[in-house]
Amino acid sequence: MNKVAIIGVGHTKFGRLEDKDLMELLSEASLKAIEDSNTDNKDFDSVYVGAMSPGIFNQLSGIASALVDKISLIPAAADHIKNGPASGGSAIKAGFQAIASGMSDLVLVVGGEKMTHITTPGYVTSNVATLTHPEAERRHGVSLPSFGGMLTRAYLEKYNAELDWISDIAIKNHKNGTLNQNAHFQRTIEDFMKSAIQKGKGSWDNVHDFLNDDKTNPVIADPLRLFHICPISDGSAALVLCNADNAKEFCDTPIIISGIGQATDTHIVYEREDITSLKALRTCSEQAYKMAKKEPQDIDVCEAHDAFSILEAIQSEDLGFFKKGEGAKAAHEGLTEIGGKIPINPSGGLKARGHPLGATGVAQVVELFWQLRGEAGKRQVEGAETGITCNFGGFGNNILSILVERI
Amino acid sequence: MNKVAIIGVGHTKFGRLEDKDLMELLSEASLKAIEDSNTDNKDFDSVYVGAMSPGIFNQLSGIASALVDKISLIPAAADHIKNGPASGGSAIKAGFQAIASGMSDLVLVVGGEKMTHITTPGYVTSNVATLTHPEAERRHGVSLPSFGGMLTRAYLEKYNAELDWISDIAIKNHKNGTLNQNAHFQRTIEDFMKSAIQKGKGSWDNVHDFLNDDKTNPVIADPLRLFHICPISDGSAALVLCNADNAKEFCDTPIIISGIGQATDTHIVYEREDITSLKALRTCSEQAYKMAKKEPQDIDVCEAHDAFSILEAIQSEDLGFFKKGEGAKAAHEGLTEIGGKIPINPSGGLKARGHPLGATGVAQVVELFWQLRGEAGKRQVEGAETGITCNFGGFGNNILSILVERI
Repeated sequence: MNKVAIIGVGHTKFGRLEDKDLMELLSEASLKAIEDSNTDNKDFDSVYVGAMSPGIFNQLSGIASALVDKISLIPAAADHIKNGPASGGSAIKAGFQAIASGMSDLVLVVGGEKMTHITTPGYVTSNVATLTHPEAERRHGVSLPSFGGMLTRAYLEKYNAELDWISDIAIKNHKNGTLNQNAHFQRTIEDFMKSAIQKGKGSWDNVHDFLNDDKTNPVIADPLRLFHICPISDGSAALVLCNADNAKEFCDTPIIISGIGQATDTHIVYEREDITSLKALRTCSEQAYKMAKKEPQDIDVCEAHDAFSILEAIQSEDLGFFKKGEGAKAAHEGLTEIGGKIPINPSGGLKARGHPLGATGVAQVVELFWQLRGEAGKRQVEGAETGITCNFGGFGNNILSILVERI
Repeated sequence: MNKVAIIGVGHTKFGRLEDKDLMELLSEASLKAIEDSNTDNKDFDSVYVGAMSPGIFNQLSGIASALVDKISLIPAAADHIKNGPASGGSAIKAGFQAIASGMSDLVLVVGGEKMTHITTPGYVTSNVATLTHPEAERRHGVSLPSFGGMLTRAYLEKYNAELDWISDIAIKNHKNGTLNQNAHFQRTIEDFMKSAIQKGKGSWDNVHDFLNDDKTNPVIADPLRLFHICPISDGSAALVLCNADNAKEFCDTPIIISGIGQATDTHIVYEREDITSLKALRTCSEQAYKMAKKEPQDIDVCEAHDAFSILEAIQSEDLGFFKKGEGAKAAHEGLTEIGGKIPINPSGGLKARGHPLGATGVAQVVELFWQLRGEAGKRQVEGAETGITCNFGGFGNNILSILVERI
C-alpha cells in the first residue's frame, strides 16, 4: 500500500456567508489548498468532493464534474462522496484509497456545504432528519436534535453527570473558536453573557447561570439548550494528497495519513445495546489505531464531532482517552482544553468553528495538519505530533476516524 | 496494486416497479449478488452505493448506512458515490480502489434509482437538468434531451449520416432487450409497430416509416424522437468484488477488472472543440486500455451509454471500434449486433434494458460478467473473453470506462 501524505490545505471562513454560493466556496478552499501545496502547475489525477445535500440545498448535481472545470483541473477524474455529515471524512478516505492503490498520485479532496441562504423554517433540520430511519424514527417526528436531547438525558442519568459539565464543553469550544479566524463564532460564551447584561437583558453571577436561563438559552430538545447545539453554517475546506514518496518535492513537512477506520452501526437508534456508547466509533478508531500502530495515549490532539456537546464527551471515551462515563467530567476538569491532557477541538469544533456538513470532516484534518506542523497560532497544542478525528455520518450509524502524524 | 475480481452479481428487473421502493431495490440486487458470490456468511469490509438523486427523488439520505443495516452487513464501512448517471461506474471504481489499495478484501457495490413514482410532469427531467451548467445552459432552458437533439443534428450534418441509421441503434437495442428478462421493455420496435397497426392507429410499410411518423414517434428534441431516447426506469444492480488472490475460494470463474479510466471535460458543452466527439471518453478509455494492456481490437463485447441513440454511435468511435463519423453507419450495417464485428449493448442498453440512473454503470458490468462467463443465454456473444463499458456522468463531462476480462 502506497503511503499517503497531505501536502497542502485550504479553509474558507465558516459562517453565514451571504455573498458566496456553494461552487464558489468549494473553489476557494480548493485553490487555497493547491496554492499551499505548491502544485499549481501539476496535473491532478482525481478530485473527491464531500457534500451532504447540494441537490436539496442548492439545486445542484454533478458538483465534482463542475468543480474540476471551474478550477481548471480537467481531465482529472471527479466524484462526489456522500456520507451525511461525514461526507468530508469519506471523501478523504476515497482520496486516500486512490493514492494507496496506485491509481492516482496527486489528489484534491474538498468538502463543503452552503445552507444559511435557506429561510424556510425547519427546512434544513427536516432534510438532515432524512438521515434517521423513515419508518421507525422519522415518521414519528424524530430529528437529530431530539436524539441529542435523549442521549444527553440517558448519559446524565447513567453516569450521574451534570448538565453544566456538558455546558463546559461548549464553553471550551467557543473559547477555542475565538483563537481561530476561520471560525463561525468569534466570541466566548462569557462575551455573549456580558453583551446580554449590557443590553439589560438580565444579570447572572456566572456563565452557567446564563446558560441555564430559559430567556437566554432556550431549551431545544430537553435537556439540550441552544448553546449545546452546533450552528447551521456555510463553508469549505480542502486537502491536497500525494503519494508520500513524492511529498518532499512539494513541501518540507508533509503530514502522513497513517490510519483510517470507518464503521457502521444499526440505523435504528433504539436497537443499539447502549445508546450512551458509540460502537461504530470504537470499531473504526480501533481500525485507525491498529493501522497506524498507535494507542490512544499516543494522541496529542483530537478533533471531535460535537454537533451536540454531549457527543464530544462520549467520543472522548470511545476514542479511548477516558473511561466510560468520565468524558463529561474530564471536560469539566479542563483535561480537554488546549494545554490539558488531551486537547479536543482546539479549532472550536462544530460548536464554534461551525458545521457546514460536508466541510466538517475535511476541516478537522486541516486543523490537525496545522497543529502537527506547529502552524496553529494562538491555539497551538505544543509539541503535537499525532492527531485523530471523529466524523459522524447519521446519528452514530456511520463513523470515520482518521489518524495523522508528523514523521 | 492488488488485483480485483468480480465473484458474483445481482440484477433486479428494470422498469416501472410500482410496489418496490429504492431501499428494497438496492437490497434485492445486493442480496442476489451476495448469494451468487457464495459470500453469505462472510464479513464484508466496505459497501459502495451508486445513486444519482435519492434525496430529490426519494427524500432519503444516508442510503449507504441504511443499506448495510437492512442487509445485515454492519459494521462494514459504507459510502454513497455520486456522479450523475455514472454513479454506478464511480461506485465500482471506489470499490476497486478499496481492494486494490489493500484497505478492503471483500466489497459490495450496488447501484440503483427509483423514479417512476414521480408523477409531476417534467420533475425528473428538470432534476436531471441540474447536471448542466447553471448560468451558461440551464437558465436558458437547456435539458439533456435538447443536447441530445443538438448533438444528433451536428453529427448527421458533419458526417453526412442519416437519422434512420440512428434509429437502427434503437431497433437493435430493443431487439436485444427482448432476449433479456431483466430489461424494462420486452418488445421489439417491430412489435410496437404491429401492435399499433392492429389497434388501427396507422399502416406502415416498414419500421423506419413507423419511426418517422409524428403520430407514433413524436419529435422530442428535433431531430430526436421518442424512440431515440431511453426511458425513465426503476431498478438496481450489484457486484461483489474481492481480492483476486482469494477469488477461487468463492467461484470457479471470477472475472477480473483489469482496467478503469475516468476523465472529465468542460462543463459547458459549447466550449468543447468538437461536440460530435467525446474527449473525456477518448481519455478514459485510453487509460483503461493501457492499464489492461489491451487495444480496441481485443474487445469482444461492449456496453455503451445510449441515453440517446446518437451517443452509442459516437461512443463506438471514441472507444476505438470505428473511425470518426463511421459509428452510425456501422450500426446500420449490423456490425454492432450480437454476432457482428463488435456487439454493443447485447443487454438492450439504456434504450431497452432501461436507465435507472445510478444502476446503469453497475448493470453494464453485470452484463459483461454474464457474457464473459458464457451465461448470457439467448443474447450470448460467442467466445467473449474481454469487455468494456462507457458510463456517462453529465453530458459528456465525466465519463468512466471499465475493462473486464475472463482469465
